[in-house]
Amino acid sequence: MAKYVYLNSRFTKHSHAKIHIEDRGLQFADSVYEVIPIYNKKLIDTKFHLQRLRFSLSELDIEYKVNDKQLIDIFCKLINTNNIKNGIIYLQITRGVQQRSHVYKNNLKPTVIIYSQSKSFNIPDKNFKGVEVITHEDLRWSRADLKTVNLLPNILAENLAHKKNKYTAILIKNNKITEGAHSNIWIIKKNKIFTHPVNNDILKGVTRTVLKLIIKKMGFIFKENSFTKEQLYKADEVFLTSSGSFITPILKIDSKTINSGEIGDITLKLATLYFKSIKNEKA
Amino acid sequence: MAKYVYLNSRFTKHSHAKIHIEDRGLQFADSVYEVIPIYNKKLIDTKFHLQRLRFSLSELDIEYKVNDKQLIDIFCKLINTNNIKNGIIYLQITRGVQQRSHVYKNNLKPTVIIYSQSKSFNIPDKNFKGVEVITHEDLRWSRADLKTVNLLPNILAENLAHKKNKYTAILIKNNKITEGAHSNIWIIKKNKIFTHPVNNDILKGVTRTVLKLIIKKMGFIFKENSFTKEQLYKADEVFLTSSGSFITPILKIDSKTINSGEIGDITLKLATLYFKSIKNEKA
Repeated sequence: MAKYVYLNSRFTKHSHAKIHIEDRGLQFADSVYEVIPIYNKKLIDTKFHLQRLRFSLSELDIEYKVNDKQLIDIFCKLINTNNIKNGIIYLQITRGVQQRSHVYKNNLKPTVIIYSQSKSFNIPDKNFKGVEVITHEDLRWSRADLKTVNLLPNILAENLAHKKNKYTAILIKNNKITEGAHSNIWIIKKNKIFTHPVNNDILKGVTRTVLKLIIKKMGFIFKENSFTKEQLYKADEVFLTSSGSFITPILKIDSKTINSGEIGDITLKLATLYFKSIKNEKA
Repeated sequence: MAKYVYLNSRFTKHSHAKIHIEDRGLQFADSVYEVIPIYNKKLIDTKFHLQRLRFSLSELDIEYKVNDKQLIDIFCKLINTNNIKNGIIYLQITRGVQQRSHVYKNNLKPTVIIYSQSKSFNIPDKNFKGVEVITHEDLRWSRADLKTVNLLPNILAENLAHKKNKYTAILIKNNKITEGAHSNIWIIKKNKIFTHPVNNDILKGVTRTVLKLIIKKMGFIFKENSFTKEQLYKADEVFLTSSGSFITPILKIDSKTINSGEIGDITLKLATLYFKSIKNEKA
């Protein structure tokens, strides 16, 4: 079956979905995006993703009006047409097409790209897996809080990890862990849970936001504090969160084994609670 | 007349020149580029541009083999077909198309985009003009030495300048001037010429390289030293260099007027010598 995508107001075959070479997304990375998980044919945490999309667009002065209902309709059509059970919706909005110039014109028509992709998730069942990662210098620009396609530093770190047969890279800036190449990073030490506070140095992950609510509800001791590589290495448990990886335990960082290479009790509990919240999400 | 562009091994009409939505250039800014000036139908400093292109590709592990002769043939065909007297060649190479994943596959086929654009240059004749600029924090990633399309921080700075009716923005990192949003910055103080040294914080501009040769040949005192905003404000003369702006005097920075708002003698001399070198360039 042909895969369909949504491009600039119409559905088209994936193989035919093309944009102009003078799209500012291609020439200047002048573009934002979101990745929304689909689990069991349901969209997960869409509201938070569209909130963040609005924020990224607004900070970059891209004139696209987010209409939640209209977008969700398109997402659902893609899920049905492409028969996606588990996967993601990828949504990218560029500032639009114009003759190349750093200065953008007003009233450009943004390019809107939406498609679905099948994907399996790491869920806390008998196949729940932990991963090994590397650490890497955080080379990104100073607005990591915006979900833009300026992703080359992430790509370089991620591919270095991949070449070493590792799952991903944890980024370090001024001797503090910021986040992963496409995830937020959490540590547990003496039953206390820590993750980097929200500022310009990290993306405010949607899974991070939802997990925070669960952690608070469950009464865990939780601090939004940054931590060093040494603290990371010495943590009792480490895990990452992202819309593509949900909650995924980290069992080895560089040459340091975490929790004797076993998935920790608190990580498992949080993953179970998070997964339960997904299953309970309204269609 | 229809404008022609070169896209992936063939010439096509500008309006038909499209790339797939899963091109990594669009999704990850996983792409490099060059802008080569054309003056009086001649390509300027092509060799240096292709050298830098090779460097950017190599640092990013993009498997595209630069063939100077083949590329120059394409450039010349575009100049002739599109009847460009003064303008630029824009060349962009992306890592290629693949299903979205941070991890790139080996043996992807790079996307190659080449087109021409007419443009007038600021040359040292009776219309030679100086510009006014702003300063702005340098928000870019840590590999500004690579000519990639991760240009959103440049876009934001440039558009802020534009909204204030200024020509461009000069970027400041750790209280040092790095470069402009798309140019290198030079100051002259007591007949000595200064510009930021080549490292990961600046792009090694081609005009910068050529001007350095001229400066040395002429026996000016020249230092590759970084300088502060205060030193910039107090300079006797300030100018910028780029492939699109050649040598352009800067007459006002934020609220500080430079050299009483007049084009300085040394700037004019350098611009004249640089322009002479362009006119003498072999076809």
